[in-house]
Amino acid sequence: MAGKGARGVGANDLIVTTGSQQALDLLGKTLVSPGDKVIVEGPTFLATIQCFRLYGADLITVPVDGQGAKTDELEALIAEHKPKFVYLIPTFGNPSGAMMSLERRKAVLRMAVKHQTLIVEDDPYGDLYFGEAPPPSLLALADEVPGARDLLVHCGSLSKVLSPGLRVGWMVGPAELLAKATMCKQFSDAHTSTFAQATAAQYLKAGRMPATLSRVRQIYAERAATMSNALRRELGEGIDFVEPKGGLFVWASLTGAGGKVNDGAAFAKKAIEQGVAFVPGAPFFATNPVHATLRLSFATAPLDKIEEGIQRLGKAL
Amino acid sequence: MAGKGARGVGANDLIVTTGSQQALDLLGKTLVSPGDKVIVEGPTFLATIQCFRLYGADLITVPVDGQGAKTDELEALIAEHKPKFVYLIPTFGNPSGAMMSLERRKAVLRMAVKHQTLIVEDDPYGDLYFGEAPPPSLLALADEVPGARDLLVHCGSLSKVLSPGLRVGWMVGPAELLAKATMCKQFSDAHTSTFAQATAAQYLKAGRMPATLSRVRQIYAERAATMSNALRRELGEGIDFVEPKGGLFVWASLTGAGGKVNDGAAFAKKAIEQGVAFVPGAPFFATNPVHATLRLSFATAPLDKIEEGIQRLGKAL
Repeated sequence: MAGKGARGVGANDLIVTTGSQQALDLLGKTLVSPGDKVIVEGPTFLATIQCFRLYGADLITVPVDGQGAKTDELEALIAEHKPKFVYLIPTFGNPSGAMMSLERRKAVLRMAVKHQTLIVEDDPYGDLYFGEAPPPSLLALADEVPGARDLLVHCGSLSKVLSPGLRVGWMVGPAELLAKATMCKQFSDAHTSTFAQATAAQYLKAGRMPATLSRVRQIYAERAATMSNALRRELGEGIDFVEPKGGLFVWASLTGAGGKVNDGAAFAKKAIEQGVAFVPGAPFFATNPVHATLRLSFATAPLDKIEEGIQRLGKAL
Repeated sequence: MAGKGARGVGANDLIVTTGSQQALDLLGKTLVSPGDKVIVEGPTFLATIQCFRLYGADLITVPVDGQGAKTDELEALIAEHKPKFVYLIPTFGNPSGAMMSLERRKAVLRMAVKHQTLIVEDDPYGDLYFGEAPPPSLLALADEVPGARDLLVHCGSLSKVLSPGLRVGWMVGPAELLAKATMCKQFSDAHTSTFAQATAAQYLKAGRMPATLSRVRQIYAERAATMSNALRRELGEGIDFVEPKGGLFVWASLTGAGGKVNDGAAFAKKAIEQGVAFVPGAPFFATNPVHATLRLSFATAPLDKIEEGIQRLGKAL
């Protein structure tokens, strides 16, 4: 799904992982020794933070805006810290929903080569766009920047587009890294369920993915729109967010307008009293947490439940 | 399959793992810091050695005889090294095939309590017996020794009795350890394929396991007997082994009789020249490798291939 670059992605360019979570674990196991520096986005995927920290990583945060990770700051951090690798979710970042611009993507690839720094592109949401397709993945762009492909790891998964229960993901990367990761994988779970792999392969071979993708895009687009409209209506100027163009989450800030609550954790407690739950944003920051943030998921709830949930959030606020 | 003790095994007493290999990985992740001592059998499962070493374990070896790990020496090692835990495969040890006696099993449980040492019982082969059933597992015996159950981890799997491709195993253990392992598992692969779990559950619920077990026992018993007879016939006094009463392996020693090769690795090279492969025994020892050993698997080859393979081994010797 990802490799549209000139070199393409052959069977030898990837390993199958037990969901893309395992790819993160294998990166930790393969690359991180206690005290090693790793740059992640602020905010980034919570389980990534915890996974890399289990291996002793010292996480450095690069800030994110609407165009994704700020590449000027990223380059300065790479030069200063010489990290083991940089971990990015360029397309519909979790939790930020941010979409890295084409220009910044190319800048990331150029700085990978310039500083000889490994870049990890985690891309579980790239196919979940609601309107226009996102810019090409770093993997798809890598062949435009000589040397970049050898410094790029790309993780993907069927979990968000087909079924999380299959636990089928993949990691594309340089041969030497894949060899080490394969060895580590052998001691982690021997192999990814061949039963699940065969099921996924049958599904893909039968050509059913395009129809599934267009269906899930439509479903998530409706849910995202419903949640966004309800948020504007029910929470008004107490909340600030950008309507998602893909992915599974609304990332929002509490403005504190009119003296309303502006702490994500405090708001979460009030919300639970109203019978609705969300994840406060602070834990998604490896350093310098922004407490006024929260992540709302529209992935699994039907439209009427989303309406009801946001009404309750409105009461809680 | 394992918990026949008074307390039994409820859903809260275990976590499902992605094969029992993942249980080992989670034990490493949860319990082992660099330099921590862990006692294993000599020889023991190769992937266990490598898995625990990845987490920096300092492995101590307790010798094994036909009755399993020598418990007198084990107790002395526990007293001396105060290990994080002791890892045993009491039933049809891999690679030794050794069966720990009932008496030694009880001794292990008593010393766990006396020294407050965690014991890990890895039990993937316990149901693969060819004649008489093995003594009860440590888990099944634990309630006879007050306090032992809280110091016992028991790992099992469907891989050897139903299908390795499902990657469905389990780990029974103390609540506190399971809580930590669950957290570590979340960052390892999020969860074990629910698709594979549901398939296994259906299979078990349909009551098909007893028939499967009696079939695989018969198949493996025939293969074990065929391999043993062929070994005696083709390798004569050049090899020494005990005919397996269960499991998947013949563990053998090269005697060097008549000036024949008595190094497992050298013999493996000669065997490959004859078009047959096996695993030399030395890597199964975490310390003090015994080079005259080898492990032969009769698990997957049909009878005529076993015959042919051992004939080739005879030529190689």
